[in-house]
Amino acid sequence: MQKSLYYVGVDVGGSAIKGGVVDDNGKPLSSVSLETEAAQGQEHGLQRMAETVRQAVATAKMKIEQIAAIGVATPGTMDIPAGLILDPPNLKPWKNVPVRQYIHDTFQKPTAFQNDANAAAYGEFWAGAGRGAHSLVLFTLGTGIGGGIIIGDLVIEGEHSHGAEVGHTKIQMTNPRICGCGGKGCLEAYASATSVVKRTQEALGQDGGKSSLHALVKSGKELNSRVIFDAGAAGDQLAARVVEDTAFYLAVGAANLMHTVDPDLVVFSGGMIAAGEKFLDRIRHHVQQLALPVPAAKTKIVYAQLGADAGFIGAAACARLLLRAKKG
Amino acid sequence: MQKSLYYVGVDVGGSAIKGGVVDDNGKPLSSVSLETEAAQGQEHGLQRMAETVRQAVATAKMKIEQIAAIGVATPGTMDIPAGLILDPPNLKPWKNVPVRQYIHDTFQKPTAFQNDANAAAYGEFWAGAGRGAHSLVLFTLGTGIGGGIIIGDLVIEGEHSHGAEVGHTKIQMTNPRICGCGGKGCLEAYASATSVVKRTQEALGQDGGKSSLHALVKSGKELNSRVIFDAGAAGDQLAARVVEDTAFYLAVGAANLMHTVDPDLVVFSGGMIAAGEKFLDRIRHHVQQLALPVPAAKTKIVYAQLGADAGFIGAAACARLLLRAKKG
Repeated sequence: MQKSLYYVGVDVGGSAIKGGVVDDNGKPLSSVSLETEAAQGQEHGLQRMAETVRQAVATAKMKIEQIAAIGVATPGTMDIPAGLILDPPNLKPWKNVPVRQYIHDTFQKPTAFQNDANAAAYGEFWAGAGRGAHSLVLFTLGTGIGGGIIIGDLVIEGEHSHGAEVGHTKIQMTNPRICGCGGKGCLEAYASATSVVKRTQEALGQDGGKSSLHALVKSGKELNSRVIFDAGAAGDQLAARVVEDTAFYLAVGAANLMHTVDPDLVVFSGGMIAAGEKFLDRIRHHVQQLALPVPAAKTKIVYAQLGADAGFIGAAACARLLLRAKKG
Repeated sequence: MQKSLYYVGVDVGGSAIKGGVVDDNGKPLSSVSLETEAAQGQEHGLQRMAETVRQAVATAKMKIEQIAAIGVATPGTMDIPAGLILDPPNLKPWKNVPVRQYIHDTFQKPTAFQNDANAAAYGEFWAGAGRGAHSLVLFTLGTGIGGGIIIGDLVIEGEHSHGAEVGHTKIQMTNPRICGCGGKGCLEAYASATSVVKRTQEALGQDGGKSSLHALVKSGKELNSRVIFDAGAAGDQLAARVVEDTAFYLAVGAANLMHTVDPDLVVFSGGMIAAGEKFLDRIRHHVQQLALPVPAAKTKIVYAQLGADAGFIGAAACARLLLRAKKG
């Protein structure tokens, strides 16, 4: 009998570095979180990543000798084959950071390196919503929209580390919204949490004071996507319209990936999925209208299952994949 | 030294079945074409495919014993893993035609089966514009827009045989054009040869008789995409506008695939590429504006090289791939 293998996954974000030990079935044995402190520079950042590995192992009451491989996921821009973070907008002032080499040299373990959304997709594929599937597309809904495409253990990272940048596919040409990337008509400019807030603000400027959200804004509370979804669920017509439009835009994104990759599943993750099954059903409804008959009938549209742990579980999954590839 | 291998590729279309013997380097040794005669039924169609194989072999002055494997490419709808044509709009009245089984049983050779656009993409990858690349996306520009996605010898055929249906990705939500598929806002509704003609007709209805194309239409000549591209090149402003818009729409399609698959190359094929390098340069120009900086700088945008032979060369390439997979 083969002895059980353990991996450490690390998920580097703009504000926090998450990590954990994950067993060979995708179950996390520990979950730790450190502040990234990106402003203190990239040397410090690398040390924080290493410290996350150590704390993840210690919290699982294990020793580093028991770890078979390590995976690190980071936001882009990046050069995945080179193991480098290049110039990520969320990790200023880091530039050309040799993440994979540093972690490998520090722990002397096989070390995988992957884009954070790709890792989350592979995490869901291995141990979450995609368990048992052959392929999936993940949309991560947050400030922006990221994505990951998995086809039979292949992470579609792209030739220039820009695979699955689904938030920047164009869904509108006439009078397109401007995206955070500077481009026009991107899915992200229509369906991200940021866009939900922006579209609500635009609508509030034109509804003559009818929406219940006016009082909320006047009271000084933050208008965020959660508040807007809640107002929609409570019957506020303006908010409900914004939510319905968001479901439509996400369905356009889903249909486009169904007509490109044609996966088993389309998975949505991120804060917005707190909106629950009713919102998911609206996305499904619009996909039925938008997609060709066969994928419309057969593709499952679901929410992610791993929550905020998806990144480090996925990073661990990439470590496992690396080890398997090495063994041939 | 391993003995050289030969394959037969067959490309089934609505009006013609093309076929040829292809050597192990992707070079065609023969090229034959038979009328499909689809209206005579699917039994007759299967016999025509078998006859194409025989004629391809005979024309190459070879014997069927020298053929290592056969590949057949057909238009969809289809079930690729099952080897079946389902209900293709271009092959009425065929339904549930067991193409792979029939060709296999007739010739007792390993037989591959693939969607025609996927096969063309794999043909270009193996022996055409994509030689030496690791991945490519092909757009086939004709009456409709088809596509193929190849990543490192993997043909992205999808879980429900709908991979790379790039013509039916949505690029417009507001006042969207209606597509031949019945859907709205599809790339095909903006950038196919059919759409070029339709958009020209619409523009001619509004230009007060200025365009040189009015005389052509009056003389009873057919308004097709070739004529429109020629008029644009000759300085007709209305035609030039239609051509420029087409380049923009195709660039949107290219950028969307660059932000999804992030391939080495985006390849355009089909009758419209007769428009030449100037048109390609306009597509490239718009891609520069639309795509994220790294893929914009690094992804090659090129024309296909195999012309009308891409389908059967690609089908032969699929036969070769099948044989290699069998050998492990």
